[in-house]
Order: sequence, then structure tokens, then C-alpha cells
Amino acid sequence: MLNETGAGALLAILRDGQARTRAELVEITGLARSTVSQRLDALLSRQWIVPAEDAISSGGRPAVAFTFNQAARVALAADLGATHARVAVTDLGTTILAERTADLPIDRGPEPVLSWLVDTCLELLRESGHTLDQVCGVGVGLPGPVEHASGRPISPPIMPGWDAFPVPEWLGERLGAAVLVDNDVNIMALGEHRAARPEADQLIFVKIGTGIGCGIISDRRLHRGAQGAAGDIGHVRVSSAADVVCRCGNTGCLEAVAGGAALSARLTEAGVPASNSREVVGLVRSGNTQAVQLIRQAGREVGDVLATIVNFFNPAVIVIGGDIAEAGEHVLAGVREVIYLRSLPLATQHLSIRTSELGDRAGVIGAAVMVIEHALAPGVVDREVLDLKRA
Amino acid sequence: MLNETGAGALLAILRDGQARTRAELVEITGLARSTVSQRLDALLSRQWIVPAEDAISSGGRPAVAFTFNQAARVALAADLGATHARVAVTDLGTTILAERTADLPIDRGPEPVLSWLVDTCLELLRESGHTLDQVCGVGVGLPGPVEHASGRPISPPIMPGWDAFPVPEWLGERLGAAVLVDNDVNIMALGEHRAARPEADQLIFVKIGTGIGCGIISDRRLHRGAQGAAGDIGHVRVSSAADVVCRCGNTGCLEAVAGGAALSARLTEAGVPASNSREVVGLVRSGNTQAVQLIRQAGREVGDVLATIVNFFNPAVIVIGGDIAEAGEHVLAGVREVIYLRSLPLATQHLSIRTSELGDRAGVIGAAVMVIEHALAPGVVDREVLDLKRA
Repeated sequence: MLNETGAGALLAILRDGQARTRAELVEITGLARSTVSQRLDALLSRQWIVPAEDAISSGGRPAVAFTFNQAARVALAADLGATHARVAVTDLGTTILAERTADLPIDRGPEPVLSWLVDTCLELLRESGHTLDQVCGVGVGLPGPVEHASGRPISPPIMPGWDAFPVPEWLGERLGAAVLVDNDVNIMALGEHRAARPEADQLIFVKIGTGIGCGIISDRRLHRGAQGAAGDIGHVRVSSAADVVCRCGNTGCLEAVAGGAALSARLTEAGVPASNSREVVGLVRSGNTQAVQLIRQAGREVGDVLATIVNFFNPAVIVIGGDIAEAGEHVLAGVREVIYLRSLPLATQHLSIRTSELGDRAGVIGAAVMVIEHALAPGVVDREVLDLKRA
Repeated sequence: MLNETGAGALLAILRDGQARTRAELVEITGLARSTVSQRLDALLSRQWIVPAEDAISSGGRPAVAFTFNQAARVALAADLGATHARVAVTDLGTTILAERTADLPIDRGPEPVLSWLVDTCLELLRESGHTLDQVCGVGVGLPGPVEHASGRPISPPIMPGWDAFPVPEWLGERLGAAVLVDNDVNIMALGEHRAARPEADQLIFVKIGTGIGCGIISDRRLHRGAQGAAGDIGHVRVSSAADVVCRCGNTGCLEAVAGGAALSARLTEAGVPASNSREVVGLVRSGNTQAVQLIRQAGREVGDVLATIVNFFNPAVIVIGGDIAEAGEHVLAGVREVIYLRSLPLATQHLSIRTSELGDRAGVIGAAVMVIEHALAPGVVDREVLDLKRA
């Protein structure tokens, strides 16, 4: 076993941001001093760590301490929605260094959308003063089901032309980095958890946009379920919608009464024209009574489904995000009303129900988290360090 | 760091039952030969491992291989239900060596019930030819909420006198072993998962008895939720029960229309006397039409709640257990009917929905699993080995 193989594990210890001397690392790991030195040298040569500025003096010559270098690499992160896209360059602490948003309908198909993404990534890297060889990976969120292992969209309903498109390979060839792809709600849950509520063991991120879905953090990790289908609550039956036909073909789905598409259609029918979620939220904000009533009722419908989930899953935090959540307290009030009425006291006594803290940025931050976690996994760091040695 | 500290990690490697030589273990762990020898000696002295009978020859003198010793210790396992109790002695592979069942109402209170449990444990140990110092731990399932960290019941609705009773301390003093306590449905899920479906990453065990609850296996471990309240689906609202008052004080709870108590009350009202779940099942088995219709509808009500959970959680396996599940295909048919109607195709295409394979024994097997996992955790084995050395 080569001594460099443990460099990744050493980096994992230093990731908390605390500076540590060689002697401290010998004590923590129980490894020989020479082994620790070899591993530190390997990490220093790749700039994963840097000598800390405030070296600790132990009487004579000051001992050098080492610390994790958040500027060692950058992540490219993209949140591609149904109609909008957001792309960012972040450091290893998920701080956004450069960012771009654009109106970009996903239904233009994979090659036009991903070509735009490649161009934008290259522009943002230039803007932030980085080059492609500093990129530790590319994270992409897509508005549909994605097969976790392959990173390919699987029969995505609103993404014509994308079914089974090899997104990781296509982008990897052009950007020369590892590419990870996931469902947009999953990366939103990841972003909100790590950036806003890292102490929560269980968190549910509910996105109420055109459709409705949720991302689940269980034991501080994404829960994907047996087929990667976990979180698809938009097609749960709600009793108040028994006779409403959903785009999935079934009747009574949550999405068919509480999704943005349903809300704008119902307002339009009632003589208050609205063509999408944003216009619904605009009407609510301007105080339109029908819109306010409708959106509060939508909150109750979502709350009805979440009440079951609270009893079943007992989460610590529920975050409401997506376009419709921008209507703020009206939606949240409806959600809370039903959860507190229907869920068990033990499960709700410490439950936090709130709107997204990251807002529009939950997706890109989550995409960056996904990439950084992968790039800093001890095995991945070890391979990179060994490759350098061989080269 | 003492070399014996890693004995538990070495035992973890050998737990798969495969025999390995000293040289093989040196290769697997990357440790020095002398370190591996010290750790093997420590494990041999405590009989955690034994020399394998079919030693592998490598030309000259045959190399000795070592294997995990399932007979090294025994576990005491108890499933205390509302009216019945089951106690067993098992080996470290959860094979039952001696077993006792009894009619024992939990509402007699903690001291009478636990005194009986201590006496029964001692009898069963004698029967199986073991002594208390061979016991690696005691696992107990109780029919109510249990605080995970302390092992104490928390305001259990059907267990008068048990609230906050220090079960682990009380039993530990009398049996001289570590005592772990959990909710009965949690240990049933654990037992069914490890003994019948260990390959499933996600499994939901639904107990339909007097009440209704479920145990959740997520990522092959018990999911307890933020307050340990996860799995309490008995009080989820179902639309068909809108005006039925539940014992919890709310209306429309699943338990109030599909639990054993509700079913026996409804049959009795309809002129078919039944005083508990078992009598309901007896009527179903004897072909009573009203009982068959009622129990199938109960299956549909449970299926309605599970359909939401399938979309949300995407489990690989759902197991239906508890007294009412003994009615077999009638309940299962109702459950399946609604799940396949309401859940998403992606989430149901490989979903297995079945009755418990362990039946009445799911609880004791699960209690044994809980204790054995704890006793064989590397840190626990290390401490035991070090204690022996100091003694």
C-alpha cells in the first residue's frame, strides 16, 4: 500500500477548516510521522492544503500548521429549469464567484441547451479568473427524473428530446471534468441542507412550481429510493380534487389542484388572467383576493399530503421552495394549518416549517455541493494525487 | 494506541462467515503480521473466533484459518405485546435455541411483566444450556413509543404505569447485561429485513394489529426520525373515515377504520360478535362474508396511505404483518389494489408487497438482531477485549 493512498483521509480531517500541525495530525491519526509527512507533501503539491498564516509556536521554532484550501479548485454548477437557467462558478466552500441567469426553455432540446451551458461556463471561468484545469467537477440539475448511476434523464415529461441523452459524457468531453447530474429538487434539498440547515438529520425540501415534488435528506444524505423515484409527491391523491384530471392521466393528483399550472388555469377561468406561476404570485402580491384565497387553499392541499409524510417520516425541517413559495406567508400559512391540525404532537413539537433561505440559488448551491462532495471523497483525492506522481 | 484496539474491526471482517488465514487478513487490512496476530489472539481468548475445521494447505504445514464463532455468545430477545409475550434465546446468527410464549397483558405494569421476563430468561438459558455470563445483551420490544437514547417508554397510550420506567436499568441489574429497548414495530422491521430481505436498501414493515404502525428501514438501517416518532401512520387521515372519532381524539384516522379494534367493533355492531383482531381473523378464515368484505376494505384504506408513502419514499419492499395480516390474501389484495392504482409506475414496477415471512417471530428475531449488532460493534468488542486484559 502506497503511503499517498491515505492523503484523502487526511484531507477529510482538515476539511473542517481548523489548522493543524504535523504533530497534531500524527496524534489524531495514530500514523507514523513519516507517513503523515508524505501525505501532507502530496496534498501541498496539489494545493489541496496550504500552510496556515497563524502558525502555532511551541517555544523555539514555530510549528507549521496546515489548513484546507477552499480556493484549491472551483466547481461549475448549473440549475436548468423548465424555462430558466442559472449557472455559477463556486469555490470549495460553495461561495459563488461568478453567476449568470437566462431565459432558456429546456424543451429546446439537449444540444442547444448544453451548448449554451458550455459557453456560459467558459465565460464565467474567465470572469472569475480561473481555467478549466482548476475545475473539480460540473454539477447539473434537470427538471425531470434522472437515473442516478448514469446521470441520464429517464422519460422526463417536460423535456422532449432529452430521454436517455448522455449528459455527463457530452459535457465531460467539452469541459474535461467529471459531470454529475441529478433531479432539480434533489439538488435544491442538498443545497438548502448544507448551506442553511446542516445540523438537521432529516430535511424535506418541497418545490411548488409548475409541478410539485420534494427532495429528501435522511441521515444527512439524499434519499433517492429504490428506483430513484423518491420525492414524487405531485401525483398523490388529495380528496378535494377527486374529479380533476391531471396531466399524468390519473384524477385527484395534488399537482392538479395546487401546482402553478393548475392555479393559473383556475384563475384564468375565474376571469383573472394568469399564464404561469410567476403571474399567480404577482396577483397574490398585488392583493388580488381570488388569488390569495386560491394560493392559501393550495398551501392546505400541500399540507394535507405533508401531514401524512410528517407522521411517517418525522422530519426535523420542511422547506417550501419553488416559484409559488415566493408568495410567502400565504402558502406557508396553509401548509402549517393542516400539518398542525393533522400530524401527531410528538412529530410536530420541534418541527420547523419555513420558506427556502437560499431562494432561487438553492439549485446551483446544491449542484456545487454535489460536485464538491464527490471531488473531496478520500478515494477520489487519492487517485488524483497518485496520478500526479505517475505523470 | 494499543494493538488490541483493532480487534473489533478484525472481527467485523470475519463476520461474513468465511474462514481466513493470518496471511489473508494481513493482506486485507494492510496491517503488520504481528499486529494481526495480537488481535487474533485477543479474539480467540474471548472465543469470538475459532480455528476453522477445513484449514487451507499451502504446500507444507497447513495454514490455520479462523472463522466467526456464532456460538460465542447468546442473545436474550423479548417481544412484549399488548396481550401476549414471546421470549427467546438465540445464537449470534439469530437462530432460536429456546423459546417461550405466554398470555401476558402489558397493562399489568412494568414490575410484574419484567419480573416474569427475568424468570423466563433464566429458565430459557437453563433449557438451552447457557449461563448469564454468555449473554451478550438483552433486546426488548414494547407496544408503545420508546425514547431511543434512554430506552424508556414515553407516554405509551396502552401501557399504564410504564411512562418513563427505566426498563434498561431495571433489567440490567437483574440480568447483568446490556439492555436495549425499542418500539415493537421497529424491531419487527429490523427482524424481517435482516432475516428475510437483507438485500433490500429500503423496507417498510406495516403492523396491522389492534392499532396500526410501521417500521422503516432506510439505507439498511432503522429510520427513527427527528423525535423517534417515525412510522406512526395509524393517525393519518383517510377520507372515508371523515366522521369517525379515533381514540387519539381526532377524527378520520386510519386506525379508526382499519385497525383490529375498529374492525371488531364494526362487526359486533353489524350483529357478528368479535372481541379482538384474532376473532376477526377467525371469522375471515371461516368465510364470513361481512368479515371478508370489511377486512378487504381495511386493506384498501391501508393501501391508500401506503400509496402516498410509496410515491414519497420509493421503498423496495413493503411487508404487512401483525394479527390482521394473518387474514392473508384478503388484506394484501386490498393493499395492492390501491397502491397499484395510485402510486407512480416507476415506484411500483419492482415493488414487492407481501406478508411477513417471520410471522409471529419477527419481533423476537428483530430484538436479537438489535442486541447482536450492538454487541459486535467494533468499539464494543474492543472494550470487552481490553477489559479482559486488565482483569
